[in-house]
Amino acid sequence: RCILGLFEGVVTGAADGYGRMAGKPAATLLHTGPGLANGLANLHNAKRAHTPVINIVGDHANFHLRYDAPLTSDIYSLAAPMSNWVQRIKGPDDVGAAIEAAYAASLKMPGVATVILPADAAWSEAAPASARAAAVPARPIASEAALREAAQAIRQGAGRTGLLLAGEALRGEGLEMAGRIAGAFGARLFSPVLIARAERGRGRAAFARIPYPVEPALDALRELDALILVGEAEPVAFFAYPGMPSRLAPPRCQILSLATASDDQTGSLAALGEKLGVAAGKRPAARRAGMPEGTPSGALNEDAISVLLAEMLPEGAIVCDEGLTSARRFFELGAAAAPHDYLMNTGGSIGIGIPLACGAAVACPDRKVVTLQADGSGLYTVQGLWTQARENLDVLTIVFANHAYAILQIEMRNLGVKNFGRNAERMMSLDAPKVDWVGMARSMGVDGARAATCEDFSTLLARALKTKGPYLIEAAI
Amino acid sequence: RCILGLFEGVVTGAADGYGRMAGKPAATLLHTGPGLANGLANLHNAKRAHTPVINIVGDHANFHLRYDAPLTSDIYSLAAPMSNWVQRIKGPDDVGAAIEAAYAASLKMPGVATVILPADAAWSEAAPASARAAAVPARPIASEAALREAAQAIRQGAGRTGLLLAGEALRGEGLEMAGRIAGAFGARLFSPVLIARAERGRGRAAFARIPYPVEPALDALRELDALILVGEAEPVAFFAYPGMPSRLAPPRCQILSLATASDDQTGSLAALGEKLGVAAGKRPAARRAGMPEGTPSGALNEDAISVLLAEMLPEGAIVCDEGLTSARRFFELGAAAAPHDYLMNTGGSIGIGIPLACGAAVACPDRKVVTLQADGSGLYTVQGLWTQARENLDVLTIVFANHAYAILQIEMRNLGVKNFGRNAERMMSLDAPKVDWVGMARSMGVDGARAATCEDFSTLLARALKTKGPYLIEAAI
Repeated sequence: RCILGLFEGVVTGAADGYGRMAGKPAATLLHTGPGLANGLANLHNAKRAHTPVINIVGDHANFHLRYDAPLTSDIYSLAAPMSNWVQRIKGPDDVGAAIEAAYAASLKMPGVATVILPADAAWSEAAPASARAAAVPARPIASEAALREAAQAIRQGAGRTGLLLAGEALRGEGLEMAGRIAGAFGARLFSPVLIARAERGRGRAAFARIPYPVEPALDALRELDALILVGEAEPVAFFAYPGMPSRLAPPRCQILSLATASDDQTGSLAALGEKLGVAAGKRPAARRAGMPEGTPSGALNEDAISVLLAEMLPEGAIVCDEGLTSARRFFELGAAAAPHDYLMNTGGSIGIGIPLACGAAVACPDRKVVTLQADGSGLYTVQGLWTQARENLDVLTIVFANHAYAILQIEMRNLGVKNFGRNAERMMSLDAPKVDWVGMARSMGVDGARAATCEDFSTLLARALKTKGPYLIEAAI
Repeated sequence: RCILGLFEGVVTGAADGYGRMAGKPAATLLHTGPGLANGLANLHNAKRAHTPVINIVGDHANFHLRYDAPLTSDIYSLAAPMSNWVQRIKGPDDVGAAIEAAYAASLKMPGVATVILPADAAWSEAAPASARAAAVPARPIASEAALREAAQAIRQGAGRTGLLLAGEALRGEGLEMAGRIAGAFGARLFSPVLIARAERGRGRAAFARIPYPVEPALDALRELDALILVGEAEPVAFFAYPGMPSRLAPPRCQILSLATASDDQTGSLAALGEKLGVAAGKRPAARRAGMPEGTPSGALNEDAISVLLAEMLPEGAIVCDEGLTSARRFFELGAAAAPHDYLMNTGGSIGIGIPLACGAAVACPDRKVVTLQADGSGLYTVQGLWTQARENLDVLTIVFANHAYAILQIEMRNLGVKNFGRNAERMMSLDAPKVDWVGMARSMGVDGARAATCEDFSTLLARALKTKGPYLIEAAI
């Protein structure tokens, strides 16, 4: 199925969303260095999410490169930072093997496999490619030594041993087993601050997300004697600040690796459970966050949006959260909401929300996709709304229209700046003019409406969740 | 003056427009690898246009890099392909010297000078920087040998010697001298297919633009025995095609270099004129293209737009042409229009028109800027309309709304494909849904209207050219 994006960042973000939900790669088709460049920001997110993507970049014909025509650039240099694997096709007979290798590479160390396809390799006749299915590489489970170490830390460290879950460890059998281990031994479950995909909601094992700000993050991990990594590297601060540490676990905390991003996290957790004698099949001891009492009313604000959505979210929904500063409350309430999948911006490249939702909706056409979209970030790849209209994707976009780069204002304060100068102020506010998000969406074929009160928002939300197809709510906060 | 763009491609394209018109660099401010990546496509155009740009890219604090936090990437690898010069600042005391060096570098080999600025270098105290003005590097003029060779080719080759003009050779004294040389000796004047900036219109020396399609380009140069390069490399095909040559000048044609992009093109042409005994001050023999008879009427089409604009263009206007397939007629008529500056996409990275106009309007606040914008390309960096509204820039955007990637359809046919498959068809048409450009512009604070007839277009155009501030006309063609 070929799907058109009006900008490469839409294409790569959609490939990320598809890969996260389908567990197999989508292929992009970008054009030369500048087209690749336009897609790199969301490829960065995909790489950090360990999403399999086959990233195909067209280039000049081989014989034309030496002439340095206007569109020529060093595609390898551009691709390498955001790819786990890059290969340039030499001629037409390489195409089949290269795509097969890219497929395997995208799944082996899950992430972005880039294939550079010269025009003459594309337009020339080639021998028929083999019809055999490409082999899916096996992913190793934890070694005996790693299992022994982890089991020992869990047995000895009730309340002082943590499991940092990522990849498959945040869903399905992996998450269930982690929950049972936590229940049986008092181990604590964490996720990274940025989550590629997690299964959340009632009945599922709950975990704490390491906070974004450094001080609360240090607090969250302060009591740990051991942290067992499952599918993720050691947690570090998103940004550095003067006088603050980069590493988040306390210096005395032992860092153990059960499984890396390229290992089999589910299998490793199963093996760990077996070693610990945790029976399979028992339900996890889920910590159930409660919903707040009462229904929000009056003027709309960011937390009210999260409360109303958590209450009304349909089972099986997919939430793409690029709400940044505005949607924090939704994550807290997510454990008490109906079971859903939860996807975030994983690499800090803003402009992923709308595209990610496109890809998730293509992968899961029977599930409602809800995008929590900060307005400043949403404007990066707003063209993705057109793809939602064109493909009639079942996506509800909720725009937190605070007309500011609120996260920059916070980061500026984090650096100790109390009063912003006029220039800095103007670089962080989007209020003159205010973007009319409903008009923007309609101009690309997506209907929408604006809500300024909880009552209006609630009415629009209920209707949008019941109706199939793309819709946008501009939440005036 | 700090100006906010809602997407980095707007920022870099605006820096390009500013640099082309002001002749000195604007500074961008981008954030880490992904923010840089978003700006690379238009930096590619700026590099190819030889526009001075100081491209500042914020990065993590030095001490934080080793932890590979989510936003970490290899900024050098990303920046190098689209920069002439890259330097990473080490600490706070380097900042002044590095920016000074970037300023000089951006002017010496005119193009993109990238400075990577780590957060700790930005937030730490630094010794006061020197207040002296940075030296503007001298640009050499043609050597005596190059002048002698060029003069000989011009004297001997009436009608069979060409001058390929770029950089300053397409404006002011440089263009005037080229015109006088052409008039005196029958030399032929050419520009590259892609023009960074040219002064065009009545009373100015006319030149032929090398056509974009290969066969007409070969025809245009077929009779040349010598081609003298002034500020540009030898002309090559924009794309390669099976069985077609990459080089455009005939094999027997002698290629002479009078001045490279980093040389003084104006000075070199003046020296050439002196050697040839061409008197300064005589008016060039301008070839005046005539306007077509009569005024277009009835249903609007792309050529009618060009005719009406060429007739009504106010003196001193700046035309930013990213009309691609739709605005070809405008260039032909430009020599007969009122004197104006003419700017194009120089690197083939689409999405430059709207941003380029932003920068040109900032550089020249007293001149009307007119953007000829293909719709597919315009959607790449449509966010630039918001900047036009916010800064109240005097820009008229004319969108050629053909709802297709017409250039891809042409390129596909150039490769010999007669009937497109359904998937290919869907990848090249933008007609379901059609973007409502007026609604899009209004959602970002730019007023506009739609015209489907020549009469309506003419009325809207006349009004928009008389009114200050941003405006958009959706030309339904």
